[in-house]
Parts: sequence; structure tokens; C-alpha cells
Amino acid sequence: MVYTGLYVSMELQREAPDPLYQQIIDDLTTAIEAGRFEPHQRLPSERELSEQYQVSRMTVRHALLDLAREGTIYTRVGKGTFVAEPKIDQQLRTLTGFTQDVTARGSRPASRVLAASVVPATPEIAAALRLPPQAEVVRLTRLRLSDGVPLAVETTHLPFARFAGLLAHDFAAESLYAVLEDEYGVALTHAEQVLEAAVGDAGENELLEVTPPAAVMRMQRLTVDSAGEPVEFVLSTYRGDRYKFRFALQAGSRGV
Amino acid sequence: MVYTGLYVSMELQREAPDPLYQQIIDDLTTAIEAGRFEPHQRLPSERELSEQYQVSRMTVRHALLDLAREGTIYTRVGKGTFVAEPKIDQQLRTLTGFTQDVTARGSRPASRVLAASVVPATPEIAAALRLPPQAEVVRLTRLRLSDGVPLAVETTHLPFARFAGLLAHDFAAESLYAVLEDEYGVALTHAEQVLEAAVGDAGENELLEVTPPAAVMRMQRLTVDSAGEPVEFVLSTYRGDRYKFRFALQAGSRGV
Repeated sequence: MVYTGLYVSMELQREAPDPLYQQIIDDLTTAIEAGRFEPHQRLPSERELSEQYQVSRMTVRHALLDLAREGTIYTRVGKGTFVAEPKIDQQLRTLTGFTQDVTARGSRPASRVLAASVVPATPEIAAALRLPPQAEVVRLTRLRLSDGVPLAVETTHLPFARFAGLLAHDFAAESLYAVLEDEYGVALTHAEQVLEAAVGDAGENELLEVTPPAAVMRMQRLTVDSAGEPVEFVLSTYRGDRYKFRFALQAGSRGV
Repeated sequence: MVYTGLYVSMELQREAPDPLYQQIIDDLTTAIEAGRFEPHQRLPSERELSEQYQVSRMTVRHALLDLAREGTIYTRVGKGTFVAEPKIDQQLRTLTGFTQDVTARGSRPASRVLAASVVPATPEIAAALRLPPQAEVVRLTRLRLSDGVPLAVETTHLPFARFAGLLAHDFAAESLYAVLEDEYGVALTHAEQVLEAAVGDAGENELLEVTPPAAVMRMQRLTVDSAGEPVEFVLSTYRGDRYKFRFALQAGSRGV
């Protein structure tokens, strides 16, 4: 490969097993990851790229479409193609809340309360929180933002009997985990979490300001306090184009 | 709520904050999870459901579309709507391979080798495996199946210098991890893993036999041996409609 100023390699391997559009994806991805393009910098046009790579515009378009779908680049109609911000690299090592995560990244967290009410638990929620069928739960749905950009929709459920006064707080301004700790003395000690990839529905796409079909990460979390009591059951939807989730695995007792 | 024989509740809460289609989704999901419908059992028709729930067929259709998109049900043209198998609940506690995972669930693993070659490492792969730029790597792409059903496409990269004879094995029949352990004496001790939600591309949809737009879980794994040497860098795509990934979180040193 020839290393040039602008990209990693301008020369595609025409005999290689990888199709040309895939080589363009790899080349542009590497160039962006290496910092040769800044976030929100405009990429060369389809025509310019097809000349530089010596391929058809259809091949370039195929590569750009895939890069846009992955969230590496974005397009603005009539303005061109731009480099996206790198995805948020969320560590799944310790139990943290959205407010804490965003603050730790040096950004400004914000929430919009979409709904807050006391409702009878669905069978799934009641079972998770170990409540009798249809016991009342506090249900709080928030749009979570970072520096004004919507990143997730989060609906949490807590036993009403234990947290009856909870909705007196303004969760547009306060962190739920901070209130639980400061006002209720709850020490959250561990959580069981489930991740699923999904295609966002119409409501999610609108709230998260993404263009369908958009990938989302559905997250389910059951959080437990130091006494082993379930405290909250959370259903969240994170933007797939803005998040990746990182964690470590160890070999089990029987090895691999 | 009224408990009837067939579903969890036939009576929707017309004054409730949740839209009716969402209540139908919740009701059918709970009924399926409670085992009131078997996998591959046919659901009542749209017309029957609209009579039973006393809602319009459009409301029923909205609920069924969402349930299909989530992978809870599937449709066969001209035959109706059927209950899907429950998603595979993959524990992310210990480092295991596909063959071991499938076998542990009591299913029969199989692989189709889509490509196997020795190629120069891309900058990303070389950096991950701590190899010099463009060092040769063994690259192996497999379609992974369980009981004949395609579940994932997996492309792994290993340093050619260390595993030169690897491709003499038939990885349609053998487990890579078993070969690494038995023939090369490699003890895989831990891995760093990254999960991203994405919309499958055309090639993935065809291999995984899913209808676009289909959600997929992209997984990146760097596996390290007992000496701390990177052994393999894997890029996988799992079917979003067939998998959920479960893991535990502990409170960090500064609490939550």
C-alpha cells in the first residue's frame, strides 16, 4: 500500500479478496480513526473520491452508505458528507448512572421528563422487583441528553411503597441515583443487565432524532441494594450510532 | 385486569397512559413468556385479535409489526403469525467460543467456512494484535449455525508467524479454540469485548437469512493468552432477533 498525505492508502488492491467498496470503507475508517479528518469535517465529494480511488461513483456511494449506516459519517442534504463524532465508548465495568457517565466524559448531562406517574406493575415488572401482581410502581420516563444531543430514552420502575415521595423531585434537574442515595439512604451494589440490538420504532426515532431505519441498543437493568432488595427495573433505548459498550471477559473455571 | 384462559388479560385499560397497541404488545409478550403459546404456535389472526381486544385491526397490526421487529413473533406470507423461539440468553461472564456456547445449550453447532486466507493486516488489526504494519495474519470467516439455523458471521484474525499451519485444519468441523489449545498449547485467559447495535448490510442479511431492515449486534473481541500476548482479533455479527447478552455490574469504589 502507498501512504499518501490525505488518506491511509489511495491505492486499492484490485486482486484482493475484499470487494473495492469494502477497501474504501476500511481506508476511510482508518483515516478517520487516525485523526486525518476531524469530527464534522466535510469529506471529498463522491466525484472526487471516485477519481482519487479510481472506481465508479456507485462503488463510492456503496461505501459511503455503509459508513453512514455505521455512524462513522453523516450526510446533510445539499451540503455533503461529514465525519461524525466518534462513538461514546461506554465501559461496562461498574454500576453507574447516565448523569455520572456523561459528567465523567466532561460533557453536560440533561434530562427531559417525558412521563412520571404511579401505575400498577405489569407482570414482568412485578416479577423483576419481587412485588405482588399489580403492586403500584413509580414509573419515570426520561429523554437523556449530553451537551444538548439526545442519546437515550430511559424508563425506570421503582416500588411505590418504598419510594412514595419520589416524584416530588424534579428529575429534569436531579440525578435519580443521587436522590436514592441522599434521601433514601439506598446503596446500590450491583445490577444485572441485558443488551439487545433492535431497530428503533417511530417514537424512539423521533425522540432520539435519528433517521429510520436506525439501530438502537435496548438495555434492561435490574439494580439491587446492599440488602439484596431490587430497587429499580430500567428499560432503556440507546442510540446505536452514538454508543459502543466495552467490557472484559475472564476464562471460566473449565477454561475455554 | 381480568385473567382469562388464553391471554394474560383480554381487557385493555382504555384510560391508561400507555397506548392500546402497547398494552397489546405487553399482554402478548407476557402470555408468550409465561408459556401460554408454544414456539412456532400460530397466533390468532388479526381479525380474531381485534375482536378479542375490542380494538381496530390497525391497532392490532401496529402491535404485531412491533412484536415481529423485536423477534418475538414471525410471519409467513399466506400462513399467518407464529411465536418465535425465545432469544438465546448469552451470558457474558466467562470467555467462551461459539462451539462451546451452542453445545452448552444442548444444540448442535456447525460452521460454514466462507473464506480462509493469509492477508496483510489492516492498520486496525495490526495495532490490536501488536504486529508491525501489514504483517501477515491468518483470516478466517465462518458462518456459525445452531441446529442448522444461521446465527452469526465471524471473522477472526491471528498472527501468521505464530499460527502458520492453522489453515491446514478444517474449521467447518473443528473448533478454533480447541485447535489453539490442543495443537498450539494456547491458554486463552481473558478478552476485551465491544458490542454495537447496527442495521445489517445486504451481505449479512443474506447469510443470516433475515429480512431487512434487520438489527444485528456487532461484536469485536481481542483475546489474550496467559503470557498477555494478543492471540486473535474477532469481528462478529450476531442476529439481533435471536440474541440477548446478559452480564453483571458491581458498584465501583466510589459507589454510584
